[in-house]
Amino acid sequence: MSDTRDQALTQERCVACRPDSPRATEQELREWLPQIPEWHVIEREGVPQLTRTYKFKNFADALHFTNKVGEIAEAEDHHPQIVTEWGAVIVRWWTHAIKGLHRNDFVMAAKSDALYAASQGNRARQDDRHA
Amino acid sequence: MSDTRDQALTQERCVACRPDSPRATEQELREWLPQIPEWHVIEREGVPQLTRTYKFKNFADALHFTNKVGEIAEAEDHHPQIVTEWGAVIVRWWTHAIKGLHRNDFVMAAKSDALYAASQGNRARQDDRHA
Repeated sequence: MSDTRDQALTQERCVACRPDSPRATEQELREWLPQIPEWHVIEREGVPQLTRTYKFKNFADALHFTNKVGEIAEAEDHHPQIVTEWGAVIVRWWTHAIKGLHRNDFVMAAKSDALYAASQGNRARQDDRHA
Repeated sequence: MSDTRDQALTQERCVACRPDSPRATEQELREWLPQIPEWHVIEREGVPQLTRTYKFKNFADALHFTNKVGEIAEAEDHHPQIVTEWGAVIVRWWTHAIKGLHRNDFVMAAKSDALYAASQGNRARQDDRHA
């Protein structure tokens, strides 16, 4: 994984979205998806969504990550659906106002990945200390 | 809603569950479900689960409730799937070890309801103060 692959996305902020905001085009999807390669586009109730499952070693770590994603959601006023369970968190980003995918969703997906990478780095350091 | 209807369930603790622990019988389902009337039994991937959707006025309140449910899950070492989104939390309880419903799940559903009732009480008092 390149350290810089999603730098452009993670450093963006969400822009306000309205029902007439532009949906991501096919061309844009082809350009942006490779920048968040662990994410998939799924369709739920006719609405395309970005989804990724993050793995954790227990429930507490999963819930901690859910809260970290919640923090950026509040900061950007753009909110995902987050499924928390023992050992895993599924995050789904889409833009309600346009019933589809906006550049914002790719920005938030990349920011979520950065949070996960940071949490795994912290975990690795904690494991080192306890070894 | 009776104040005492789920008192018996909420005051129980979870018991350790093993693959040979007893699934709830049809008779028990008929007896226990009326004690948690807002919950439904759904089947997902062949596994019956208790599910309830709780409503909130924003994302932060929903995420706060997710954390409260997470606290009792950790305390009882019995973990649900929790779906957090703007204005709603879906909680699903089932028992992985028996791929089905155990008395524990009804106990946890009742405890979740008690947390929700408490959170709505706090909300009402806050609204009063700000009125």
